[in-house]
Amino acid sequence: MRSIDIGSRQIALRLLFFVSSLLSTHAASRCSNDGSVVRNISEIPSSNYGRDGLSHITIAGAVADRMKEVEVWLQTFAPGKRTPIHRHSCEEVFVVLKGAGTLLLGSSSSKYPGQPQEFKIHANSTFTVPINDPHQVWNTGELEDLQMLVIISRPPIKIFIYEDWSMPHVAAKLKYPYYWDQECLDSLKDEL
Amino acid sequence: MRSIDIGSRQIALRLLFFVSSLLSTHAASRCSNDGSVVRNISEIPSSNYGRDGLSHITIAGAVADRMKEVEVWLQTFAPGKRTPIHRHSCEEVFVVLKGAGTLLLGSSSSKYPGQPQEFKIHANSTFTVPINDPHQVWNTGELEDLQMLVIISRPPIKIFIYEDWSMPHVAAKLKYPYYWDQECLDSLKDEL
Repeated sequence: MRSIDIGSRQIALRLLFFVSSLLSTHAASRCSNDGSVVRNISEIPSSNYGRDGLSHITIAGAVADRMKEVEVWLQTFAPGKRTPIHRHSCEEVFVVLKGAGTLLLGSSSSKYPGQPQEFKIHANSTFTVPINDPHQVWNTGELEDLQMLVIISRPPIKIFIYEDWSMPHVAAKLKYPYYWDQECLDSLKDEL
Repeated sequence: MRSIDIGSRQIALRLLFFVSSLLSTHAASRCSNDGSVVRNISEIPSSNYGRDGLSHITIAGAVADRMKEVEVWLQTFAPGKRTPIHRHSCEEVFVVLKGAGTLLLGSSSSKYPGQPQEFKIHANSTFTVPINDPHQVWNTGELEDLQMLVIISRPPIKIFIYEDWSMPHVAAKLKYPYYWDQECLDSLKDEL
């Protein structure tokens, strides 16, 4: 029995190694441009970065592609899923490719965001978020994924996260580097 | 007969006025955001800006939307149609939505662009153009439109146009404001 146990453990260890090398290969290919000038977006691996129902791809990014002025993401939210309530001091443009949902927009001129305004968003719609306005994008649909191209200026993004709409602006917590940038920075460290 | 002539002329003048007011209404709606936070891209009128086979929509722009750091366009090229050979000192990201074509990329390190490298582009592909590299995007297909989202930094765009790939960089001609920005600036003047 003991030898079988050791055998199982070895198989489990090999499987773990295989899965972890697969994950790090994916992280590496998410985080480094192989030098191809033209890339197939379907071949860029996505990740949920620990958030159930999210799929994020950095199409052109500060860390992987050395972009200095703009960054482009492809994000998909499953029904019911949403971004955190957050703000940032860069410009942001959304182009909705699929699905429908709601944009919630709070105020940056009061001490806290307050009751947000709600705007319906849908496939083939576009909106920009004013600099520093707290906002949240929510797939309020029940069946369809909400897929958007997201364009930001001045990458990498510096995001301040609110727990709720009544949290004062000064209490919002900076998450920097953000999850996808953190992964790429870690992946760069691994290469050194 | 004379009165009929005058009548025809009046009808022609009225028609001309109607068409020109229609065109200026379209120019105005291309150039001014009506304050809607979320806009339907299909309702933003496109124009070819005098270039046969081009359809351009500014989704979020410096003049219409007061964007300061990024600008987003939706451009469609009919089969055989292409951009001029040009360069600019801002970042540019392309996301190909439909069709296929060719990216031609010259050199910025020689005195003139030289024989360009050619890269196939296709729906669901992405590419960035390095700052100041002379380039041209061409719908080399025979049947299908080539449709792309184009993202630039530091709007409004300042474009230097080359007559051919052997024209020295210093001879490339600045077109600024570019056609769509020119229209919006003219439309602003009309409002004053």
